[in-house]
Amino acid sequence: MFQKPYPSVASLVTSNAPIPSVKAAGWVRTKRDAKDTAFLELNDGSCQGNLQVVIDKTSLPAAEAILASIATGASIEVSGELRASPAAGQKWELAASAVTLLGAADAETYPLQKKKHSLEFLREISHLRARTNTFGAVARVRNTLSFAIHEYFQNLGFYYVNTPIVTASDAEGAGQMFQVTTLDLDKVPRVKEGPGAGTVDYEKDFFGKKAHLTVSGQLNGETYATALGGIYTFGPTFRAENSNTTRHLAEFWMVEPEVSFLDINGNMDLAEDFLKFVFGRVLERNPEEMAFFNQWVEKGVVDTLKTVVQKPFARITYTEAVDVLVKSKQKFEFPVQWGIDLQSEHERYLTDVVYQGPVIVTGYPKEIKAFYMKLNDDGKTVRAMDVLVPRLGEIIGGSQREEDLAKLEKRITELGMHVDDYRWYLDLRRYGTVVHAGFGLGFERLVQYVTGMGNIRDVIPFPRTVGNAEF
Amino acid sequence: MFQKPYPSVASLVTSNAPIPSVKAAGWVRTKRDAKDTAFLELNDGSCQGNLQVVIDKTSLPAAEAILASIATGASIEVSGELRASPAAGQKWELAASAVTLLGAADAETYPLQKKKHSLEFLREISHLRARTNTFGAVARVRNTLSFAIHEYFQNLGFYYVNTPIVTASDAEGAGQMFQVTTLDLDKVPRVKEGPGAGTVDYEKDFFGKKAHLTVSGQLNGETYATALGGIYTFGPTFRAENSNTTRHLAEFWMVEPEVSFLDINGNMDLAEDFLKFVFGRVLERNPEEMAFFNQWVEKGVVDTLKTVVQKPFARITYTEAVDVLVKSKQKFEFPVQWGIDLQSEHERYLTDVVYQGPVIVTGYPKEIKAFYMKLNDDGKTVRAMDVLVPRLGEIIGGSQREEDLAKLEKRITELGMHVDDYRWYLDLRRYGTVVHAGFGLGFERLVQYVTGMGNIRDVIPFPRTVGNAEF
Repeated sequence: MFQKPYPSVASLVTSNAPIPSVKAAGWVRTKRDAKDTAFLELNDGSCQGNLQVVIDKTSLPAAEAILASIATGASIEVSGELRASPAAGQKWELAASAVTLLGAADAETYPLQKKKHSLEFLREISHLRARTNTFGAVARVRNTLSFAIHEYFQNLGFYYVNTPIVTASDAEGAGQMFQVTTLDLDKVPRVKEGPGAGTVDYEKDFFGKKAHLTVSGQLNGETYATALGGIYTFGPTFRAENSNTTRHLAEFWMVEPEVSFLDINGNMDLAEDFLKFVFGRVLERNPEEMAFFNQWVEKGVVDTLKTVVQKPFARITYTEAVDVLVKSKQKFEFPVQWGIDLQSEHERYLTDVVYQGPVIVTGYPKEIKAFYMKLNDDGKTVRAMDVLVPRLGEIIGGSQREEDLAKLEKRITELGMHVDDYRWYLDLRRYGTVVHAGFGLGFERLVQYVTGMGNIRDVIPFPRTVGNAEF
Repeated sequence: MFQKPYPSVASLVTSNAPIPSVKAAGWVRTKRDAKDTAFLELNDGSCQGNLQVVIDKTSLPAAEAILASIATGASIEVSGELRASPAAGQKWELAASAVTLLGAADAETYPLQKKKHSLEFLREISHLRARTNTFGAVARVRNTLSFAIHEYFQNLGFYYVNTPIVTASDAEGAGQMFQVTTLDLDKVPRVKEGPGAGTVDYEKDFFGKKAHLTVSGQLNGETYATALGGIYTFGPTFRAENSNTTRHLAEFWMVEPEVSFLDINGNMDLAEDFLKFVFGRVLERNPEEMAFFNQWVEKGVVDTLKTVVQKPFARITYTEAVDVLVKSKQKFEFPVQWGIDLQSEHERYLTDVVYQGPVIVTGYPKEIKAFYMKLNDDGKTVRAMDVLVPRLGEIIGGSQREEDLAKLEKRITELGMHVDDYRWYLDLRRYGTVVHAGFGLGFERLVQYVTGMGNIRDVIPFPRTVGNAEF
């Protein structure tokens, strides 16, 4: 049987009883060295708080020498007694009977000395930043969200499906995609003769054709949904977008459920239920991390999450939303009229001012939405849905899919795309087609929303953006 | 609250009681049309078995017309009574009071007619193959394994970490990697002047340098393990290997736990416990799928899994393994002597003949293992471990990592690599270094092992291999 090498700090600081003899290990966050007593704050990443190690220098042999070797960042092992702490804000402390230095950290060069570091600086040492309070908390909340996503869909009997990362399909639209190749860019092979003479000879490339990194698993996901009922993807997707903002990553994780026999109303129920569940899990499992974010990162973030969990989501049509916005007489940077895509300022006006809670907007003009969305009977709008949440705006985008072969082919042609490129996707409508729906959620935006972190680069371990693929 | 549009076929075929009035939906697997009665086998992907729909043609209005429109592959909705079935092998049947065709499937062109299709043929229609018994079963077992992996590590308090997919790090070794680029291969920009004049100008590429798809998340994973204690990755990795075999994919999913304060013995306990858990979950949750694989795909596969779950893993050193193999007098294709890498034939001799169960081999010659593995005191062997299982050989490879900065730098230099390329990785040893260990598991090989499927392309929804990136 596997046994953890040491009890976690989390298990010790929440112990139900004192422990006469225990060994703990972790990294030293701070050292406070007084005349007769020294205090070490020990952290092992298992929780937001530290375990206070108390060293009675009068009774611990060689205490001075050991303490001299221990600085912030050092790894140590401590044996001793877990006893009630007289200090405020902590139930237990570890009275050390022995302290062993495992790995030193040079106080001159270790970058994470006890002081406030800027997030920009910490981004430059992404390999060490998980050792800080902020990034430890982000990592734990991100983990809770990840697992909650799996739990939610597994509870429903949906299957986790791994859609491909590398794709040679023309169906996704080639804009802003990364190319994947094994060709030598120093001497790109060319087609020698015939129609394509002089162009890049992709027959010599690994996949025998031009290949890219996926921008979405949805189309592939639909193939499994129309065989297995309910599925979800949760994997990396890519955008080669030249956007240097706090909300864009070139590599990010997406969650995309897709469900057969589900219409737009069921899809709204699913999205609402899903968000309530995953936010509920974080509130329940990470109270300390959330208290930390609420105090130090974004005031009010806990209340915002509670609103989403507790309040029924308002449901309005795009047309109603436009009416409300126009009648509001509010000055927007982007003026509102039927046909425009709603901007963040409009979405937030709906959530923060009008409905004071989450809002789902459906029935968008077909021109501003994707080709595969189910056309309404009006011929003008599609069964798209955007889920908007307070303080942010859109967090989920989805739709009922067009299950009618003829209508879907017509739309593809209207948009100047080629039916032949969608052959396998259209087969799903050709053979045993069913009403189905799904949505997409950018996972890092979710983590950003839950933690209140201002820059999306700080909610993924190693961010990839224009000009940056360090570590 | 989200409600599934229909009760699943799985819930109906395992119902505890008859249901006087119920609606079900799914796809028709087969139709049997007799004089007064017709039978449809309905499947919705929720389980291996079908729900038998019984249509009493004498009482159902327009039965003949509806039945004429329904062929294999059609999607239908059925209302009726779930009642005890007189037929053998099924508890319930659905006596239809109404049948609605949702989506037809043309009997002439639908590729999945009722007959045995070759796996090769089904691979060409990967967008439809999940609708077959075999691939539905693979998808469900793959899902169980995925979630079991998360459950196992979450139960231990390990954190799920997403390591980067695109990497510009030189630390991984450039062999057999895919390049990721936004440069136009038709006119690759060149450095105009200076030292690199004439070479590809990667400053113009998206990341400002040459970038690749990752081959492993381990090094990045270690940065989080040495901050948070125990972590695991579970994401796609890539090999641009020109291998056209039944065991190689260019894109596959890897599971890589990494644990601080863990030594090689703890690592062995972890790997053994982990495999027993995930195999146990499949045996428990997918008995019908496993019975299917055992009967149709690989006889004995269930017993093999049970052996792994029940039998303690033998633990031997590489040196002992070589001794046993040499003394066996067995004729191997690759002769055995100390220093060679063990081949599949050797591994399987150990598991299938000598130990008749799983075996963990440790202490491999350093020359055949990676630079980051912990050197033993003999100076010749490293604390690597390969976990071997019956019928297959290696399923997991791992090691205790070298936590000693000086030794690790020495090894990097010995191998002709550059210490500077590993700067951030070495920081983990420079600051608060700890004993730590981890392993890697190719997820598709695991699925292949559990299902008995002969070709790895059949255990991932859309396989990517040399010359193939369809769908």
